[in-house]
Amino acid sequence: MNEQAGIKPYVIGLDLGGTNSVFGIVDARGDIKATTAIKTGGYEKVEDYVKASVEALQIIIDQVGGIEKIKAMGIGAPNGNYYNGTIEFAPNLAWAHDGIVPLAKLFSDALGIPVALTNDANAAALGEMVYGVARGMKNFIVITLGTGVGSGIVVNGQLLYGHDGFAGELGHVTMVRGAEGRSCGCGRTGCLEAYCSATGVARTAREMLAKTNRSSLLREMNPEDITSLDVSIAAGKGDELAKEIYEFTGKMLGEACADFAAFSSPEAFIFFGGMVKAGDLIMEPIKRAYNDHVMTIFKGKAQFLVSGLDGASAAVLGASAIGWEIQ
Amino acid sequence: MNEQAGIKPYVIGLDLGGTNSVFGIVDARGDIKATTAIKTGGYEKVEDYVKASVEALQIIIDQVGGIEKIKAMGIGAPNGNYYNGTIEFAPNLAWAHDGIVPLAKLFSDALGIPVALTNDANAAALGEMVYGVARGMKNFIVITLGTGVGSGIVVNGQLLYGHDGFAGELGHVTMVRGAEGRSCGCGRTGCLEAYCSATGVARTAREMLAKTNRSSLLREMNPEDITSLDVSIAAGKGDELAKEIYEFTGKMLGEACADFAAFSSPEAFIFFGGMVKAGDLIMEPIKRAYNDHVMTIFKGKAQFLVSGLDGASAAVLGASAIGWEIQ
Repeated sequence: MNEQAGIKPYVIGLDLGGTNSVFGIVDARGDIKATTAIKTGGYEKVEDYVKASVEALQIIIDQVGGIEKIKAMGIGAPNGNYYNGTIEFAPNLAWAHDGIVPLAKLFSDALGIPVALTNDANAAALGEMVYGVARGMKNFIVITLGTGVGSGIVVNGQLLYGHDGFAGELGHVTMVRGAEGRSCGCGRTGCLEAYCSATGVARTAREMLAKTNRSSLLREMNPEDITSLDVSIAAGKGDELAKEIYEFTGKMLGEACADFAAFSSPEAFIFFGGMVKAGDLIMEPIKRAYNDHVMTIFKGKAQFLVSGLDGASAAVLGASAIGWEIQ
Repeated sequence: MNEQAGIKPYVIGLDLGGTNSVFGIVDARGDIKATTAIKTGGYEKVEDYVKASVEALQIIIDQVGGIEKIKAMGIGAPNGNYYNGTIEFAPNLAWAHDGIVPLAKLFSDALGIPVALTNDANAAALGEMVYGVARGMKNFIVITLGTGVGSGIVVNGQLLYGHDGFAGELGHVTMVRGAEGRSCGCGRTGCLEAYCSATGVARTAREMLAKTNRSSLLREMNPEDITSLDVSIAAGKGDELAKEIYEFTGKMLGEACADFAAFSSPEAFIFFGGMVKAGDLIMEPIKRAYNDHVMTIFKGKAQFLVSGLDGASAAVLGASAIGWEIQ
């Protein structure tokens, strides 16, 4: 960390979620020096959202010595396009749900520093590379297991953006083909996300409960209220049905990773997000299914890791990592 | 093309196949100035193979003005590892079927020029980027449809080699999961290659003929002798069953490409190899299935192209392209 005159030791990270927008000022070691937040909702126009953000930011910018200490800003946002600095048709953002919003430029104009953005899963991958378990790796895949299944793919030390900026949608490879595939939020069927997201796990629970009469702690709940956390808690208490739900989920993730290895042969698969808290319940079936299904030349080569970033601040750190990438 | 004193206007390309080894001396425009070939078999030791190669090469090297006119050599070979310059456990090569052979170093020592190698599908991708339909593209996927299904993936203008040099095995993503998947030469089941290679197409033909009593020109042949070329010829004559075989094959390729788009969002998918001669019979079902299955954000973005390289010399051109990549 260098605080000499003229050196800018900090970047701003913005974790832009559907509910909250969390800002952090971060140094090169990943220490968060100051944070603030605003509600993402409540602004019909993006200009008002940026104005409110900058007002909140100004207080923490002053705390660290002013804007001249800040190199750049990185934003992790749903439907973020790195190439254009835009948010495109994001269903959960009032000011971006039916259009293309040049958010990076708006923040850059307001703050007078360079601003870049990408989607949240890519931000998580950069966060792991800059501050986390992927330091020093040049080929790895981060898989985020949350409400959806996202991914950030790093090859040759660079994020894979593809031709249009939207590469790395591994939650939407097809795992179950044909009529029996579950419907997915993307409008298609059989996607990995439809089975292995938190909502997918809850759906698996409801299906398994409905299909048999086996006893389970999960029967004490209204089926519609079951979450992946409930399944995890029940499995932790030794509930056999709950364990099978995680077996099923991990097996599908492991088979998917075997296909991903055939694509980019990564050094590591890194799992990130709320569902990872289930620990070995989910990680062991993933590793087992991977080794059962991967091509012989890839066997035993890839590591299976859990994100090393602190959950509460991981998204802000990931977003801030984009700031360090700006040339 | 620059032939001034001190400038080296040529590279050597070696298309190393199980049967023949074909050498070409190529200029920067992709014009092949001289060619020669030896049988790949008949050498128990790799040193003897290299010695015979260099003897044959010396004649065409002299034809273009001597080794000082040659910048480098590129080799496209089965199981070629770019990172190490080695051929590893190649079942069809007597001198490499049970070990790791440092072929690039052996040629480099013998010729006194830099030598690099990669597998044949990666060589095809480089060939398209340097001389073919992918000139100017930075994100594309070449899929080779031959005895097997291979792939070369370019992202950010670079071949995707992955952590170990073996990335881009898209013939071995799993398309049919579970017990009903066809067995594949890789020892697993349900791989794309088991359905969409030339041998996969022939197998589809035998299965379809056995399953029904429908009339078909293919019934005039011994089922075991049917090749993908026979299916293509029958389809060209309007044979309905033969057309359905290509429909089935193209549909699976198109669905696979939809998954590949979720990975690297390429500008183009480029098809290469003998089966591509079937033209629209295979390309139309690919495009249709892709558009039916790809995520909305990718729809209509990727081109579906057929290799622009002359079939007979394409493999040598691809191999030579590796030579230009050496820094």
